[in-house]
Amino acid sequence: MRKAIIIGASGYTGAELARILATHPYFDLQGLYVSSHSADAHRNISELYPQLKQVVDLPLLPLPNSTQKLTALAENVDLVFLATAHEVSHELAPLFLQANCQVFDLSGAYRVNNGDFYRQFYGFEHQYPDLLAKAIYGLAEWNAEQIKQADLIAVPGCYPTVSQLCLKPLIENQLLDLTQLPIINAVSGVSGAGRKASLTSSFCEVSLQPYGVFHHRHQPEIATHLGTDVIFTPHLGNFKRGILATITAKLQPQIDEQQVYACYQQYYEYKPLVRLYSQGLPSIKAVEFSPYCDIGFACHQGHIIVVGAEDNLLKGAAAQAVQCANIRYNLVETTGLI
Amino acid sequence: MRKAIIIGASGYTGAELARILATHPYFDLQGLYVSSHSADAHRNISELYPQLKQVVDLPLLPLPNSTQKLTALAENVDLVFLATAHEVSHELAPLFLQANCQVFDLSGAYRVNNGDFYRQFYGFEHQYPDLLAKAIYGLAEWNAEQIKQADLIAVPGCYPTVSQLCLKPLIENQLLDLTQLPIINAVSGVSGAGRKASLTSSFCEVSLQPYGVFHHRHQPEIATHLGTDVIFTPHLGNFKRGILATITAKLQPQIDEQQVYACYQQYYEYKPLVRLYSQGLPSIKAVEFSPYCDIGFACHQGHIIVVGAEDNLLKGAAAQAVQCANIRYNLVETTGLI
Amino acid sequence: MRKAIIIGASGYTGAELARILATHPYFDLQGLYVSSHSADAHRNISELYPQLKQVVDLPLLPLPNSTQKLTALAENVDLVFLATAHEVSHELAPLFLQANCQVFDLSGAYRVNNGDFYRQFYGFEHQYPDLLAKAIYGLAEWNAEQIKQADLIAVPGCYPTVSQLCLKPLIENQLLDLTQLPIINAVSGVSGAGRKASLTSSFCEVSLQPYGVFHHRHQPEIATHLGTDVIFTPHLGNFKRGILATITAKLQPQIDEQQVYACYQQYYEYKPLVRLYSQGLPSIKAVEFSPYCDIGFACHQGHIIVVGAEDNLLKGAAAQAVQCANIRYNLVETTGLI
Amino acid sequence: MRKAIIIGASGYTGAELARILATHPYFDLQGLYVSSHSADAHRNISELYPQLKQVVDLPLLPLPNSTQKLTALAENVDLVFLATAHEVSHELAPLFLQANCQVFDLSGAYRVNNGDFYRQFYGFEHQYPDLLAKAIYGLAEWNAEQIKQADLIAVPGCYPTVSQLCLKPLIENQLLDLTQLPIINAVSGVSGAGRKASLTSSFCEVSLQPYGVFHHRHQPEIATHLGTDVIFTPHLGNFKRGILATITAKLQPQIDEQQVYACYQQYYEYKPLVRLYSQGLPSIKAVEFSPYCDIGFACHQGHIIVVGAEDNLLKGAAAQAVQCANIRYNLVETTGLI
Repeated sequence: MRKAIIIGASGYTGAELARILATHPYFDLQGLYVSSHSADAHRNISELYPQLKQVVDLPLLPLPNSTQKLTALAENVDLVFLATAHEVSHELAPLFLQANCQVFDLSGAYRVNNGDFYRQFYGFEHQYPDLLAKAIYGLAEWNAEQIKQADLIAVPGCYPTVSQLCLKPLIENQLLDLTQLPIINAVSGVSGAGRKASLTSSFCEVSLQPYGVFHHRHQPEIATHLGTDVIFTPHLGNFKRGILATITAKLQPQIDEQQVYACYQQYYEYKPLVRLYSQGLPSIKAVEFSPYCDIGFACHQGHIIVVGAEDNLLKGAAAQAVQCANIRYNLVETTGLI
Repeated sequence: MRKAIIIGASGYTGAELARILATHPYFDLQGLYVSSHSADAHRNISELYPQLKQVVDLPLLPLPNSTQKLTALAENVDLVFLATAHEVSHELAPLFLQANCQVFDLSGAYRVNNGDFYRQFYGFEHQYPDLLAKAIYGLAEWNAEQIKQADLIAVPGCYPTVSQLCLKPLIENQLLDLTQLPIINAVSGVSGAGRKASLTSSFCEVSLQPYGVFHHRHQPEIATHLGTDVIFTPHLGNFKRGILATITAKLQPQIDEQQVYACYQQYYEYKPLVRLYSQGLPSIKAVEFSPYCDIGFACHQGHIIVVGAEDNLLKGAAAQAVQCANIRYNLVETTGLI
Repeated sequence: MRKAIIIGASGYTGAELARILATHPYFDLQGLYVSSHSADAHRNISELYPQLKQVVDLPLLPLPNSTQKLTALAENVDLVFLATAHEVSHELAPLFLQANCQVFDLSGAYRVNNGDFYRQFYGFEHQYPDLLAKAIYGLAEWNAEQIKQADLIAVPGCYPTVSQLCLKPLIENQLLDLTQLPIINAVSGVSGAGRKASLTSSFCEVSLQPYGVFHHRHQPEIATHLGTDVIFTPHLGNFKRGILATITAKLQPQIDEQQVYACYQQYYEYKPLVRLYSQGLPSIKAVEFSPYCDIGFACHQGHIIVVGAEDNLLKGAAAQAVQCANIRYNLVETTGLI
Repeated sequence: MRKAIIIGASGYTGAELARILATHPYFDLQGLYVSSHSADAHRNISELYPQLKQVVDLPLLPLPNSTQKLTALAENVDLVFLATAHEVSHELAPLFLQANCQVFDLSGAYRVNNGDFYRQFYGFEHQYPDLLAKAIYGLAEWNAEQIKQADLIAVPGCYPTVSQLCLKPLIENQLLDLTQLPIINAVSGVSGAGRKASLTSSFCEVSLQPYGVFHHRHQPEIATHLGTDVIFTPHLGNFKRGILATITAKLQPQIDEQQVYACYQQYYEYKPLVRLYSQGLPSIKAVEFSPYCDIGFACHQGHIIVVGAEDNLLKGAAAQAVQCANIRYNLVETTGLI
């Protein structure tokens, strides 16, 4: 049993990690941590999440403030899940790596190996370019071989996961005419905004609406890892969990549905957490509370519409992080997930 | 045209008042006010409420801080709607009354003529017992004669409105055996919690649940005005607007459905904003976005279940306030409302 | 007062028409009709729609079966709203036109002057090509001059209304590079599926999902009236009312946001039911229960994203039908609507 | 491994049973059956429930029509779950018992040992009074000893499960003054109405509303098994899954919260699927998608309000059925459930 901890366990993603790890047969959940000044420190996680009562009855421990104590904590565990803000992950990752932990970071702090990216889209100067260079992007279906060797895995964002799983096979096999940019329209459940008091995610204010148009941080994350520009328009939807992405792109001449299906099969036939639809299209209900990413598509007169769906907190965050950890330690990749 | 202003116009109730008064044929909406330190001061109300664009495009003016300026404002208007916190209403009402305005207060500050009530349930010492004594409780279907003479109308709370409209006829006509307390179970939409950032009313946290059990402020308001104790259990529901109250009580012997129906008719047959059901029972959809209170009931083996429904922001707040104002100035009571 | 009737009054659109016409100052609502074999015949509309109690308490009359009686009915009214299936409208329109009524048809039966369109997308042979040729497409903001002269107005579908209101100004002023097809992604509330028992629109089955991909009837309606092809992907959303359309298109070189804004202003500045956003983007909550179509947009690196929103039952159906009728009879176009 | 089948597998409860049994370590799911004339016959269950893709990919087999073939089927299995209408269960149970199967019936067909009950509330003459007499009511926390010996287990209805789990300890220990009837107000998610096309459960029609007031079949089921009359008012809520019951009752004199808590502990401290709250009250979100029944309460001036919550499809149906099966075969009672 490898010893695991979760930092940032009070948020929606952290709570999902706690639920998964509490019964994981090969990881021993040693502790849940929150920021030392969090109002939730010392509360039991099941006070915040009544559904976790008798499932995960662990206290939310305040993260030590001193480097020394943090190092002592790090030296006592094998792997850490960082469900923290990117500034926090940026600082914690080196410290845990130093102590020979494997770090599964769910923030954006190590996702793109490019200082400019952080300057432009995150507004800060990345301090650890060497780690950035070594970090492996945890898109599990695509980077398994690298993940197996990595100590710092940057788990992709929720929108980038579903967008890339839909587009990468088509781009890899050159089925798309990229002179016209792929258009990604995606709708996310409100849990994507995190567990916090805010007018924007208040029950009476939520209503289907686009946001961050042309300027969402996930656009450059997607474009960088796809190797091609895209137009990405996220929307806030009036549901709690799940992302549905409807992607429109131009096909290369003569490409038909059979070729597209064969292309997806080539990459995903043996990937247990991607479900490829031979007919019909995904919906939010197909994936909520599940670790799968569902993909369906239709072609018509030279265009393709691909529809992808996932639970933003699971395949889009916690479940993919655990999937990466399973891969890292040569476990069956669905262990603890299905 | 009487000159009206709304103080506290940025909240959900204030915005409904603004919408109603903007097209009211006899009230001239002179201004919308918010607290001088509100972050919304100087914004147009339709920035906060896009549905009001081209409907009410008025700025939210900061309320003057000095008594002198407030008095100058008061002297320039005929009536004021206070959609403010009870502490604020408590202070503003005397000032506007002094300037000979009629005051329609939607807070709890003047609803119960009893200093102990404020000490126990609102935690403060009421400073204006003489005004408390003069204030008229604006339960429009019941107190119209007094409202016509009043300068300070304390508009009832949302739960008390529907609860009393359902129970008062039965109690007045002594149809209930009150040795068993009437049981009021009510579910309110989230807008009842007001427009503010809070974890409790965050989209992902809202889920049908009771709150304030045995200790909600509306219980003594209901009990005082009914003249009998009740058990009142409010719930937060996963919808935006509306209250549904399911009330169970014991009937006096030999009372049947026909007598109950006749009793309700006696009080409400000519009340245009109460809709009495001869069959079927109210639902939230029957009343949302409307100024009505709907009432239906069933009797069985000596018990009655009365179901009342209203839009908490309208008949439970803004519409009833305007209904009171219509009554006060001898207008048709539904003016501007239907 | 012109005498009006509604045929198909039991559906969601019919009920909205009834609500609007019941208080319209220039149209006298003479009767509500449903198919003679409808289970709702002879019921009061407020039994089906409790929110209409005391608002529209009219019976749903069975439509006469014989041509003679229908003609007698038609001769007694001035205008008729057909909220009926297209097969029914196809037959009823000629009959009412014959009796010199103005016909406002909310179905697809007379929207496109092209027999092939009906063969291909509606699966029948249109029997009245002469009427098709005379019918005016009731996109109110664009065809007012023709509507004033018309006797048969084909009110546009819900998706086509919002899509065209967003795209027509840009296309008319040649701001778009149409070598790349405009991509319309739209999400509709469930009321768009009509009032009927169906598993698809059952509460537990509804979940955000695309449908009719590449093959929805509204695609050719939009393309025909825009004069250019588009890719149109409708989705079913988990809300009752409203449509949000997110449209992505390529701009001609050098076009900036100011030019786009000026273009929209040129067409809509004096159109009371289109609300143009100078900042921010529309949402469902901005338009639900209102007769407006809201339009906002953003430009970036040669692309534009236009977001349009409307209430599918109002600006997308009933309100636009009444708007057309107001225009037809030289009334203020918002009469009875705001 | 015991061989199990599910009859009525296409409904919401049947699908939950399929999901649970597909991974149950001691039951081998041999087949899913639907009525031979069902339109879903021969479809894969994951076509109906996309969330079951790769989870349970089994066909829905048409149930044989002839007694002979049914008997052959029965002889080949050890246990059967009947997620069928009560008329169907009424006929199938004897046949499977005859073949020495254990029968877990989720319908109302064998819940009350009283022919009058079926005449009055189900409208038919029960044909198997001897089986009725032998059937054990599967309220798992209360009847475990009898369940262990039983061959026919009548799994309780969803409302009765939560209602009885809340009330039985108080009644058993005589903490209530039953001269005043306990008042059960409960709100159920729409899945309680089953998977079928119906206007009542259509997305646009659903809105919080009571139904079956004073006349729901679950009232006599509750009253019979509690041994005392109750007033039971069910409501349809606008959510998919879950039941919240708010129960008000009169306490015997001098009973305080500590005694009540001790009473609940006495019965449930070692019951893994009942979660007793020492503070706070249950909500729908605490129990949806989980096999638990949560119970909290408050006392005040001689009255108690008990709040119970469960997932209507799990603890209120499928999970309790499997819990009973676990008990029947001496397995840990939560096997396959948590």
